Parts: sequence; C-alpha cells; structure tokens
Amino acid sequence: MISELAASVGGRVIGDGNEPIHGIARLETAGAGEIAYVEEERFFGAASASQASCVIAPEGAELQANCIIAVKQPKLAFALIAKLLHPTPVRPPSIDPSAKISESTDIDLTVFVGPNVCIGESARIGAGARIEAGVVVGQSVTVGKDCVLHPNVVLYDGVVLGERVVLHAGVCIGADGFGYVRDDMGYHKFPQIGTVVIEDDVEIGAHTCVDRAALGRTRIGRGTKLDNLVHVGHNCDIGERVVIAAQTGISGSVIIEDDCVIGGQVGFGDHIRVQSGAVIGSKAGVLPGKIVRPGVWWGIPIQPLDEFKRLNAHVNRLPQMRDELKELRRKIAALEKKSEDS
Amino acid sequence: MISELAASVGGRVIGDGNEPIHGIARLETAGAGEIAYVEEERFFGAASASQASCVIAPEGAELQANCIIAVKQPKLAFALIAKLLHPTPVRPPSIDPSAKISESTDIDLTVFVGPNVCIGESARIGAGARIEAGVVVGQSVTVGKDCVLHPNVVLYDGVVLGERVVLHAGVCIGADGFGYVRDDMGYHKFPQIGTVVIEDDVEIGAHTCVDRAALGRTRIGRGTKLDNLVHVGHNCDIGERVVIAAQTGISGSVIIEDDCVIGGQVGFGDHIRVQSGAVIGSKAGVLPGKIVRPGVWWGIPIQPLDEFKRLNAHVNRLPQMRDELKELRRKIAALEKKSEDS
Amino acid sequence: MISELAASVGGRVIGDGNEPIHGIARLETAGAGEIAYVEEERFFGAASASQASCVIAPEGAELQANCIIAVKQPKLAFALIAKLLHPTPVRPPSIDPSAKISESTDIDLTVFVGPNVCIGESARIGAGARIEAGVVVGQSVTVGKDCVLHPNVVLYDGVVLGERVVLHAGVCIGADGFGYVRDDMGYHKFPQIGTVVIEDDVEIGAHTCVDRAALGRTRIGRGTKLDNLVHVGHNCDIGERVVIAAQTGISGSVIIEDDCVIGGQVGFGDHIRVQSGAVIGSKAGVLPGKIVRPGVWWGIPIQPLDEFKRLNAHVNRLPQMRDELKELRRKIAALEKKSEDS
Repeated sequence: MISELAASVGGRVIGDGNEPIHGIARLETAGAGEIAYVEEERFFGAASASQASCVIAPEGAELQANCIIAVKQPKLAFALIAKLLHPTPVRPPSIDPSAKISESTDIDLTVFVGPNVCIGESARIGAGARIEAGVVVGQSVTVGKDCVLHPNVVLYDGVVLGERVVLHAGVCIGADGFGYVRDDMGYHKFPQIGTVVIEDDVEIGAHTCVDRAALGRTRIGRGTKLDNLVHVGHNCDIGERVVIAAQTGISGSVIIEDDCVIGGQVGFGDHIRVQSGAVIGSKAGVLPGKIVRPGVWWGIPIQPLDEFKRLNAHVNRLPQMRDELKELRRKIAALEKKSEDS
Repeated sequence: MISELAASVGGRVIGDGNEPIHGIARLETAGAGEIAYVEEERFFGAASASQASCVIAPEGAELQANCIIAVKQPKLAFALIAKLLHPTPVRPPSIDPSAKISESTDIDLTVFVGPNVCIGESARIGAGARIEAGVVVGQSVTVGKDCVLHPNVVLYDGVVLGERVVLHAGVCIGADGFGYVRDDMGYHKFPQIGTVVIEDDVEIGAHTCVDRAALGRTRIGRGTKLDNLVHVGHNCDIGERVVIAAQTGISGSVIIEDDCVIGGQVGFGDHIRVQSGAVIGSKAGVLPGKIVRPGVWWGIPIQPLDEFKRLNAHVNRLPQMRDELKELRRKIAALEKKSEDS
Repeated sequence: MISELAASVGGRVIGDGNEPIHGIARLETAGAGEIAYVEEERFFGAASASQASCVIAPEGAELQANCIIAVKQPKLAFALIAKLLHPTPVRPPSIDPSAKISESTDIDLTVFVGPNVCIGESARIGAGARIEAGVVVGQSVTVGKDCVLHPNVVLYDGVVLGERVVLHAGVCIGADGFGYVRDDMGYHKFPQIGTVVIEDDVEIGAHTCVDRAALGRTRIGRGTKLDNLVHVGHNCDIGERVVIAAQTGISGSVIIEDDCVIGGQVGFGDHIRVQSGAVIGSKAGVLPGKIVRPGVWWGIPIQPLDEFKRLNAHVNRLPQMRDELKELRRKIAALEKKSEDS
C-alpha cells in the first residue's frame, strides 16, 4: 500500500494512499501497481505523463500524478522502497550434498551452501550466509553473517569477510601480491604471507581481485563499493564509504581514505595517499608516492580539474597561437626592415 | 580436395585442383597438404616461395605457387575454408552425472552438459548447446540453440542468450549494475532488477562482464564481438556487428549503434551515444553524455583523429615554439633599444 | 637459527647467531624470534629501533640491532630467507574422489588434485603438481612438474605449461584469439587453432587471460611474471624474465623481448616489437607496428621518458607562454605606432 511505503521513508502521501503497489519501474514504462520516481525538475513533465500508480517526488514539486509520495531525496526513497518491494531472494538454509566442507569448518545452521562449494579447514561461516555454486573458500577463512558469495568466487586462505559483504561472480580475494626481487638469475618472489580484511557492508563487482598483503593486511573499509574488474594490490588500505568504478587498478601500499570517489580505469602507482573526500576522474593516473588532497582531480598525471581544463583549452588553442607567432614574426621583420632603411 | 574448397568460396582454381588438403597454415610454415593465403602484394614473394599445396590469392595476382585459388577476398575465403577443415569439435550429446540440473529445466536432448555444471529452475537450454565444466546457469535463464559456454561461465538469473552465442571461460553475464544512492550513513543500493539479452551470433571473450540493467535490460546486439576483460555497465545497448577490443570499459546507459568499431582500453562515461559506423581508437576516453558522430576518433577526451594528430604535432613542436618566442623577444628588445636611441 | 639463515644467503652474522628465528616481519612490527630487513639508509634509524631478533642489512651499515646479517642485497636475502621460514604449503599427494579425470590422462602419483577438478583426455600432469578445486584442464594439455594451479583456473585444449608454473585463481590460458574477417553479412571468425606455451617458472596473477595463437603459438618465456587481469592476445611472444603489471593489454602478434619491464594499464597495438631491456611506464600506449628500443618510455603514444617530461613541462607553461605572446604583441604595436609617428 502506498501509505505504508511512504511511512517507511518518512514521506507524505498526496492522493489516495490505499492503492496497492507491487513493483518499481521507470516513469516511461510504469503502469498500474507500479511506483516510479522523479528528482530533477526537467523530468517533471514525464512524471506528470506517467501511468505509474505512484510517483516519488521532491517536496513541493508541482506535478500531476495518480498519487505522489513527497520526500526530500526521491532517488534515495525509491532505492529504499525498491528493497522492500524486491527483497534479495532468500535461499532456504541447506547444504548441497556435493559441497565439500572440511570437518573443522565452523558453519552456522542457517547458511545456504550451493553445489560444488569447497570450504577449507578451520573456516567459519556466519549465520544467514549464502554461498553459491562453485565458490572456493580457503583454510581459516572467516565469512561473516549474511554475506552473499556469488558463483565461482575464490577466497584464499586466511581471508576475513565482515557481515553483509556481497561478492559477485568470480571475485578473487587474497591471491599473492605482485612482488619480486631481481638478481642476475631472474626474479625471486618476495614473501606474500599477509592477509585481506573486507569489512561490513562492502560490495565487490564481478572478477575484481584484491591481493593479500606481503606482510600485514590489505583492507577494504566498511561500506565501500568496488565495481567489476578492479585490481587492488597488496597492502592497500581502502577506507570506509569509498566508491571505485570498473577497471581501476591500485598498486601496492596505496591508502585511500574514507569517502573518496574514484572513477573507472584510474591507475595508481604505489605508496600513494588519497585524502578523505578526494574525487578522481575516470582514466586519471596518479604517480607513485603522491599525496592527493581533497578536491576534484583529473589527467595523467593528475592535476586539479580546473587546472587540467585550463591547460587542455590552451592545447586546443595551439594552432591559433602558432598563427599569432607567425604574424608577430612578420611584423617584426617589417619593423626591422623599416628601422634599417631609416 | 582443392577444387571442392574453391567451390565453397566461389574461387577459381589455377593448377591441379585434385590435390588433397588437410589443414591451414601460414605461408612460411605451410607444407604438403596445407593451404595458406596471401592478400597484400608485398607478401606475393613469400607466397611464391611457400611450400603450401595451395595458396588463396587475389584475382589476377601474379605469383608462382603449387596451386592457386583466386578469389576477391582471400582472407575471408581462408577463414571460411578454415572452418571446413577445422570444424569446432562437436561434443556428443550427454549430461555428466555430476551436473546439477533443476527438475524444472527445459533441456533439449541434444545438448552437451559437462561436469559440475549447475542449471537453475525454469531454465531453457536449446538444441545443440554445449555447456562446459563448472558453468553456472541461474534461474529462468534462456540459452539458445548451438550456444557454446566455456568452463566457469556464470549466467545470473533471468539472462537470455540467443542462438550460436559463444561465451569464453569465466564470462559473467547479469551481475548487478553499479548503482548506489548516498546519504549521511553511506551508500544504499539502487535496485538492479533488470536483465541482460545477448542476441544471436555474439562471441564474448574470457572474463568479460556484462551487468544486468537496473530496470529494463542490457543488450548486446546480433553478431557483435567482445574481446577479453571488457566491462559493460547496466542498461547499455550495444548494437549489431559491433567490435570491442580487450579491456574496454562502458559505463551505464551507453548506446553504441550498429557497426561501430571500438579499440582496447577505451573508457566510456555514462549516457553516451555512439552513432552507427563510428570508430574509436584504443585508450580513448569519451565524456559522459557525449554524442559520437560517425568518423574516426581518438584521445582523452576524444577528438576527430585528424584534429588529435594536428594538436599532438603542435605539442611536439612546443620546444621549438618556445625558442622562436625567445628570438622574437630578443629582436623586439633590439628594436626598442634602437628606437629609444634614435 | 640466525647463523644457518645467514649461511643460506652467504651473509655474515654480527651478534649472537644462535638465536632461533621463526618468522619474517616488517621492522616496525617485528618482535622476538622474527627477522626483518633494511636496505635504504633512510630506514637505518627504524632498523636500529626495531625489536626484531635479527635484521638483514647492507654490508658496512652502521646500526644498532639485536643481531645483524650483513649481505650485499638485503631485500633479496630477506626474500630467500622468507622462503625457508614460510615454505609454500605442500599438499599431500591425493586425488579428490569428485575430480573427473579422463582415463587417458597421464597423471603422476605425486600430484594433488582437489575437488571438482576436470582433466581432459590425453592430458599429462607432472610430478608434484598441485591442482586446486574447480580447475578445468582441457584435452592434450601438459602441466609440468611442481606447477601450482589455484582454484578455477581454465586451461583450454592443447596448452603447455613448463615446470614450477604458478597460475592464480581464475587464470584463463588458451581461449580463442580475437580475430574476424568482415564482409557484408558481418564478422566471420578467423581460425584460432594455434596453442599457448608457458615456460618454466612463470607466475601469472588472478584472472589474467592469455589467448591461443591463430596459427602457431603464443609464448610466455621462462621466469616471466604477469600481474592480475592482464590480457595477452594471440600469437604474442613474451620473452624471459619480463615483468608486466596489472591490467596491461597486449594485442596480437606483439613481441616483448627478454628482461623488459612493463607497467600497469599499458596498452599495446598489434605487431609491436619491444627490444630487450626496455622499460615502459604505467598507462602508456604503444602504436601498432612500433619498434620500442631499450630505454625508459612513457606517454600515449610513447616517447622517451625525458622527452615526455620536457613536453609535459612545456604544456604546463602554456598559460605563461600565452601571456608572453600578449606582451610581445603589445610591444610590437607600440613600436609600430612609434615607427609610423616618426
């Protein structure tokens, strides 16, 4: 019922709050029984035209809709309501007979363990965890309460996951860091005997790799979100509520403090510190050892965004600058000639 | 026999068409019973020197070879003949006893299902499909006729594959898109309840990830080819006969129209439209919301290739420009002095 | 015992060599029974303050420590000693009953084969090899002595691994190269019927993909190290003792000669030759067909590092250059006016 959904997000109903709602949809495709949202004024027209049974809209927005839930942050309210209407499917507790679970595993009775899952010695699996087909959990791994491990995830020995961690298909946590020492014979492996700690409420996209520390630990802080195909090197310390988009690569011993936002395909050299709140644009490159202050950065190597834009504009004007230079040369030649003549 | 192969590609035999051919090879290594090809004139010498029993060559090419098949497009003819000589190995229909197949799966009798495959409820597997070891197929997934799923592919619930789709090892289709709404507490997941549709004759390289739509669907159009480790974000719409090279990343809601060619390691911001026939060079970066017209593009952010080259040349001449500026300054100082003296 | 460890690396003990050592640690966290190392003079203070039972230090270094092992290359000695103190865990020879091994497989009695491993027909698995859960080994694959295949690795048919090769989780060797021929109908697959050869002592990071050759073979040379999420295209020939950092992408038919060092997120066009000893910085881009001479390179497209830095400095000075140009224009105008007046 609309009124119940409104109550769950602290919203005010404008219209008939008794209508039933069964699902979410976009303004354009929504129909009877569906709820949509609008946040920006330029879409108010679309919202008024929507067939949705209910539209979540900013307080004070003037629009015609079958019913409105007025809130401060419509997109946020929509996300929260979506969670109510489309809850993550719950798997009944069960352990597939094909799963290979070491006798020394400490496994809660409420977990779901799918086919062909392997769980190593002395691992601990918390209540409500969901471990899908083909996942491999190493020795002495800890998987916290209500974690979701999608198919074919690999956790190397000793990795620690907090609670409600979601790892998408193929995520690999705890492979050896990339460290070697060279001599005349070639490369000798530098020891990679540390571990990885993933804190509560982290979500990690498909095929992302987080390497174990050489010594000590690699950390992904609470509430941080990593997209697909990201690489996190050994001994990195990623703070809380950090967002990192797809295909970004982070070398060893990089510190990214809380609340940073990192675009896609960004590259970090080693031993960088990104200070809390910094924003780094997609495809940027950060030199080893750099301290990145709060603010918005872009480029290779990174510069403050404004500076980057200014220099880029200058580069774009280079042909014109060249012409001006030619013109000046001509004028000077003329002046020189005149001066000699006189 | 050469004459049969020639007939299959509409080519003309010059020489003895009765020779048997058992395999393909490069000009340099080919021997008796092997067929090679030459397309560019600069390799005609190598073709004449080749020990191949037969060389596929452009019509009218003057070269000495044991036997020639003359065609318009030798490389294409070679590819088609290679398919005849080295057909994709067929797996006899069979279902490995270790495979875990839900009773509600609608599975054709002619499929091959390898060890440890898991197929979820209400999935449909078409005739001739080949599903290799360790593949995980979610609930309500459709796999069309003659699809090939290499080991450890993961299809999340609800994904739809057309016919003759080839997914290489580890491909992940349908993981959640990367969308969150921020409030003071941190990030809340934006609903990711759409799906992914992969049309006929698509081939996708190892470890490539295609995310499900938030709402609606992500689409990969008919005949499109994706290389390894590509990332396709939620709600993207990739057209037909598009080619995307390795490690390219595509943010959410990007439209790439038919017949585009995208290089490797390209990055796309969200809500871009790439118009039909556009070509984007490797490592380019496209800003969010951009419309990319037909033509060839390069750079970060992208520019028409000619423009990019022109500006790059200007940048390379900067030291010289600086010297010229110095020279002008010197000359002006001299003129000023002279002018003051007079 | 310290003296034994010192002997194993040809070091000289300064202090009591009879102390027992059980593990490695960093200078800052090391305690009794632990060994650390110091190489750079700026860390000598930290070394003197360390609680480690023993510090490996450069010959002649002046520092106060409980005990010192003096060597020429402390980091190397530390790596070698770490191997002694923390040897790779050995798995007792055994074959998990859930493993699916073809009858025609030639498998040594000393191998470890984990749960759900699949090994195809005519494969050969050498002595001491360790094949973890979920690995899929194709037909006619050769796995040399003492190889370690971490979970969910996929080796396509015909791939050859030398001895002591380490493949981290999800590595994919031998998927089809990315080659198509276009005609009016769309793309036809160019044959990908070659193979991949990985030589002795290669280590490959998680989710890295090495494609099979179209014809012939793709090669990774002895002692070469690849990081996570690297892409190596068909027919590449990577030499010995090459290091390639994470997320670098290498197009088809690229040759990288011995002892090159390649940063992360580098992109290579096809048919490039990188000469022995060249170093290419992270995020660089190398144009197709280029020959890269020894030296250090950076940029897109690559330039010698010094040249890159010089041009970058010029670009950063563009605003100032523009101001100078304005100033000159003003002066010339003044001179012109004066000249006209006179």
